Amino acid sequence: MSSDITKLYAPAAAGGPPLFFPSPERPIFFNFDQGNPDPATYPLDLLERLTHEVLEEVGGSALSYFDPETGYEELVFGYRGLRSALAERLNDRDARTLGADNLILTSGAVQALSLAARAFAGPGDAVFVEAVTFPYAASFLEGTGADVVPVPVDADGLDVEALAEAIAAAVARGLRPKLVYTIATFQLPTGMSMSTDRRVRLLELAEQHQLVVIEDNVYYDLRYDGEAPPTLLSMDTTGLVMQCDSFSKTVAPGLRLGWMAGHVDAIGGLAAVREDLGVSQLLARVVARYLREGHHATQVAAICDVYRVKRDAAVKALHEHCGPFVSFREPEGSLFLWLKLSDGVDWDRAAEAVQAEGVFCRPGERFTGDASGARFLRLAFSLPTVEEIADGVKALGRALREAAS
Amino acid sequence: MSSDITKLYAPAAAGGPPLFFPSPERPIFFNFDQGNPDPATYPLDLLERLTHEVLEEVGGSALSYFDPETGYEELVFGYRGLRSALAERLNDRDARTLGADNLILTSGAVQALSLAARAFAGPGDAVFVEAVTFPYAASFLEGTGADVVPVPVDADGLDVEALAEAIAAAVARGLRPKLVYTIATFQLPTGMSMSTDRRVRLLELAEQHQLVVIEDNVYYDLRYDGEAPPTLLSMDTTGLVMQCDSFSKTVAPGLRLGWMAGHVDAIGGLAAVREDLGVSQLLARVVARYLREGHHATQVAAICDVYRVKRDAAVKALHEHCGPFVSFREPEGSLFLWLKLSDGVDWDRAAEAVQAEGVFCRPGERFTGDASGARFLRLAFSLPTVEEIADGVKALGRALREAAS
Repeated sequence: MSSDITKLYAPAAAGGPPLFFPSPERPIFFNFDQGNPDPATYPLDLLERLTHEVLEEVGGSALSYFDPETGYEELVFGYRGLRSALAERLNDRDARTLGADNLILTSGAVQALSLAARAFAGPGDAVFVEAVTFPYAASFLEGTGADVVPVPVDADGLDVEALAEAIAAAVARGLRPKLVYTIATFQLPTGMSMSTDRRVRLLELAEQHQLVVIEDNVYYDLRYDGEAPPTLLSMDTTGLVMQCDSFSKTVAPGLRLGWMAGHVDAIGGLAAVREDLGVSQLLARVVARYLREGHHATQVAAICDVYRVKRDAAVKALHEHCGPFVSFREPEGSLFLWLKLSDGVDWDRAAEAVQAEGVFCRPGERFTGDASGARFLRLAFSLPTVEEIADGVKALGRALREAAS
Repeated sequence: MSSDITKLYAPAAAGGPPLFFPSPERPIFFNFDQGNPDPATYPLDLLERLTHEVLEEVGGSALSYFDPETGYEELVFGYRGLRSALAERLNDRDARTLGADNLILTSGAVQALSLAARAFAGPGDAVFVEAVTFPYAASFLEGTGADVVPVPVDADGLDVEALAEAIAAAVARGLRPKLVYTIATFQLPTGMSMSTDRRVRLLELAEQHQLVVIEDNVYYDLRYDGEAPPTLLSMDTTGLVMQCDSFSKTVAPGLRLGWMAGHVDAIGGLAAVREDLGVSQLLARVVARYLREGHHATQVAAICDVYRVKRDAAVKALHEHCGPFVSFREPEGSLFLWLKLSDGVDWDRAAEAVQAEGVFCRPGERFTGDASGARFLRLAFSLPTVEEIADGVKALGRALREAAS
């Protein structure tokens, strides 16, 4: 007799499988939803050649659990050759002296965030996140039973004085301040970056309160103007900073290759809670060879050229068609614009009218988890063509005009 | 100033990173340790051709987060084309009517086990495992806070009457019997399979007590003699049985492609606790094409031919060189022999002498988590050549003779 297995779910599974957006009720003509990279930017021919070379030269070991010359550690930390190549790259950029043991390879940066949450956060801990942020990270932290405390962000990124107050308030509530999660550069969804002064202050607070700092660096290389700030990892003198990053936005998400870099003991914590047998040897070897051959700088420059044009097209179209209805800050990089609807726009009518135009942006509530995200829209400009951006933003303007009248 | 970040570990990370075996103190001449498939069995040329075809025909979508025609669900469940192809294969073998929605793709079967543990087990639950078993699965279940109860195994697999008693005992202790994890066919490490009568009885108990049954099927296809028993999934009428499997042993572990199959609500529980963005689109598309072209039956037959010869070589050498010192049951498949040392062999001297010979088997304690595994060795015959098996077992015999004298 058929049983209802949902009655046997542990609390963590209680919600069942996630709902998927957008709903197929209405056709979508202009998809500004997910931060999908433009598939035209993937270096397909290069990856195919490298795959061929790896299989020819390495043979079966390229498809084994681990490199027999390195051994079992790769079941947890991943292919050592890729970790070494990444460490060299980080050392060049951040003036560090990292080695392979300072990195763990993960299924995208998102798995690195999951492992960091499980390794460091739990009941009784206060963990601090930007008040609008990457919802997966916030959800992983919540899943540990920690108290997730939102801290405001502005044009200079995380408000570190507000963080200092939030830490004090958490202590007053009997919680242990444990961890800060920050997308310091090209913050999601606002696209803003933390000023260097604030970075200094954040690290002072981290040292003072012994807070783990998780720097989500996945958008760092997507810079179209301006000077790159120093990463938190490059400024760290305590070993409390970990930095996650991935090849999903810069090379291709289908590689499922990300990593966390930091002190060997920080990485050891992630290793301790890992519940799989590591990333694909084959894909890790292909990407290691890609780095060793020096393709990454060229690739990053090429994608920045593509996305700069798309960002500019989106900004121009917004000024042209949506001027009275939205306000936003123009980011120097990232894949997104964070739009605030003007007071004169009726939110419910706007939601209806935007859908009727076949335009899909991600509602702001998804980045706050509560009503404070209402009246915001995240517009991802990475996937549509320049023409689609122009037409889609024009359609968005029509819808907002209707909702403002 | 440098901080000790290990003081900030959550309890789950308390042990730090795992230790890796074997230790490099002594050289290893004969590696019978991990269940690594023989890399010579990987269909490298075929996989390379299929990769080429996928990239040529599909283009960038093959390296995206998901197939744009299917959409967001693939972030959680994985490439629908592979799930459909797997469902067809399961339907053929098990006379089911599964579809893509009955499967979730995972990073090997091991991630499927982690998700199942988190989805269904927790504090207050009693979960039942074979008394010698896959240590990762037992550890994932323990990590949920559930009470992990070992149940004896013999030549007919899990002792289901002992399970019935263990269930009653758990209820008497105020626990809720929740889940059974069984490697029903070619049980790890014993290599034995559950009889059909016991399978029937197990499913009766599952229905009676509303127990989730996780059937680990990763060795099922590695059969060298005898008739395959029906899988538990094929016999299930309740929706309580889930079956995990993977391509790691049959195709190549570097693909990191496994899955769980079962009732859509069972799979939904796993989806709810997933904390990554799914498996590689590229590798999933390559393997889907491999299945669609009908290569899997040929591949499985070919690897069984390789491993049958290796098993026979190991069995022959054990009878020849280790006869008085070990006893074992000859399995009809799997990658392992489970050796019990005879009473006359001094265990500590044997451990020393076996190492001195450069022979590495995995100690039995690793499969029990306690002293009940002592005096057992798991010998993996999959990786060494036939010649290495002969020489290695001869060396093992020398060491055991020394420890028995």
